[in-house]
Amino acid sequence: MVETVLAVDLGGTNLRIAAIGRDGDISYRSRCSTPHKDDNRSIIDSISDLAHECLLEIGATAIVRSIGVAVPAVMDLPRGIICRSPNLPMLNGLHFSDELGKRIGMKVVLENDATSAAIGEHWMGASRNVDNSICVTLGTGVGGGIILNGLPLRGPDGTGGEVGHICVEPDGHPCGCGSWGCVEQYSSATAVVRIAKELAAESSDSTLDDNGDLTAQSLYESAVIGNPVAVEAFRRMGYYLGIALAGLINALNPDKIVLAGGLSAAWSVFIDSTRDQIDKRAFREPAGRVKLVRAELGDDAGILGVASVAFSAADKGILEG
Amino acid sequence: MVETVLAVDLGGTNLRIAAIGRDGDISYRSRCSTPHKDDNRSIIDSISDLAHECLLEIGATAIVRSIGVAVPAVMDLPRGIICRSPNLPMLNGLHFSDELGKRIGMKVVLENDATSAAIGEHWMGASRNVDNSICVTLGTGVGGGIILNGLPLRGPDGTGGEVGHICVEPDGHPCGCGSWGCVEQYSSATAVVRIAKELAAESSDSTLDDNGDLTAQSLYESAVIGNPVAVEAFRRMGYYLGIALAGLINALNPDKIVLAGGLSAAWSVFIDSTRDQIDKRAFREPAGRVKLVRAELGDDAGILGVASVAFSAADKGILEG
Repeated sequence: MVETVLAVDLGGTNLRIAAIGRDGDISYRSRCSTPHKDDNRSIIDSISDLAHECLLEIGATAIVRSIGVAVPAVMDLPRGIICRSPNLPMLNGLHFSDELGKRIGMKVVLENDATSAAIGEHWMGASRNVDNSICVTLGTGVGGGIILNGLPLRGPDGTGGEVGHICVEPDGHPCGCGSWGCVEQYSSATAVVRIAKELAAESSDSTLDDNGDLTAQSLYESAVIGNPVAVEAFRRMGYYLGIALAGLINALNPDKIVLAGGLSAAWSVFIDSTRDQIDKRAFREPAGRVKLVRAELGDDAGILGVASVAFSAADKGILEG
Repeated sequence: MVETVLAVDLGGTNLRIAAIGRDGDISYRSRCSTPHKDDNRSIIDSISDLAHECLLEIGATAIVRSIGVAVPAVMDLPRGIICRSPNLPMLNGLHFSDELGKRIGMKVVLENDATSAAIGEHWMGASRNVDNSICVTLGTGVGGGIILNGLPLRGPDGTGGEVGHICVEPDGHPCGCGSWGCVEQYSSATAVVRIAKELAAESSDSTLDDNGDLTAQSLYESAVIGNPVAVEAFRRMGYYLGIALAGLINALNPDKIVLAGGLSAAWSVFIDSTRDQIDKRAFREPAGRVKLVRAELGDDAGILGVASVAFSAADKGILEG
């Protein structure tokens, strides 16, 4: 019986680690900046250093045999290989599970970061009491994870649940994924700032205060006090999110849709527009039943989710092979 | 052990029945026109008559204890109630399983028609050798069924898999579902004819022969011999289908996408456009892996699928309660 696992959230900016028990209790946590050197060695080094710090801190009373790592990447999950990570390209092609496992003497389990967040919210957060949910992370981009019948939909490439790249404008804005018109280009923090700038440029009497450092946060504050450009930018952001969600509601009939990520804090200024599109576009029965809620775990969703994956893998004996 | 089931495909035009064994062998089949009277009694009568005809024909050697019915409707599946059927509105609100069951003395299992087709293709047809597939029925409308980990995604309302109502043009053509810009309005047989008429009206030198009776079939024949309006209409039909499928590939990572329904016979004149959009828009790994294939079971997909559901329900003992 594995009693504690280590869980890592390997983000583009921060590398976070925690020691987590079966009840989701976090007994220790630490973090560092994610190294952005050309070689992948420095990332393995950083995770190894943090893991040893964790083990020292939690002491010999806890049994730790595995580490779960949430990675923003397309992966070959059964083989533990990172195929492609747009934000951490130095990891592309790395046999991550083998390399990290050899280094720290533990079995390594990988999981896509957005899927980890969905699993975390399903285990301990906003979707814990339902079997079918979609977790949409509204941040720099738009990530997603899908839970069906209580199980994560990963797909063989770890890209299952990538709802941020559903098209909502067929001739729309180019997307980093290679497509264009993806919901990520309309409903992310990056997108809402771009939309506001476009609106301000179109409007001769714009009152939006943009000294070149407009952020989603400052835009939100402007929207709250009724700045028309900011209000309209968030209305559009919510409108396109609603279009994507309506399609997912028709296709998947989720019980809950959980909105996570930094931009979900702007809930009050976009959610009416999102709900309006869902009500107008999705089938009456699933639209009437689905609950649209905010995430509850904040930044901990990913580490809790990948901890749950590490426990599940241990229980299935996958780690004993 | 149930050895044979009756399977009914209750379409808007035809009511088809078959006696089907565990190996998918059809020992007898019959059909009639679907009655379109105001009361629902005539549909129950017709199914009952056909069921008795089946039982007489297959004789006493077969044990038949259940009947599966594929219905084009939003349903309360656990209770066997038809909530809403746009094409058979006289059934709305009917406790179908109870009514039919009392009438013919058999347990009744309901399934959405498009989901039945997906289950049929998964059991005996084009997607029989994979665990994750999407079956898209291109007919008068666009229907869909999703199989994940070998199991149909129904949703509590029986509308799971309704991929025809994914939005591909946010300000697009109004759809019968109440939304607008759904892929059904661009990639169905009805839609491709409308698109061709729109193109012909725009083009002063159109050579499209339209005496008011243009059909998807005649349009296909025109496209095959290179009529530019027909070719362009099918290119657009395939383009929008590709947009919807690319989003589903990113979200669900299917192994196969099966195209079924009458319009799938026009495969040669739209599929390049569909594949092109998938290649340009979907993530490289799942897009490279997914196979786009034609359905193999034709009109039998639905009855085979709902027969499989009836067998599964019998095996789980649901029918014994």
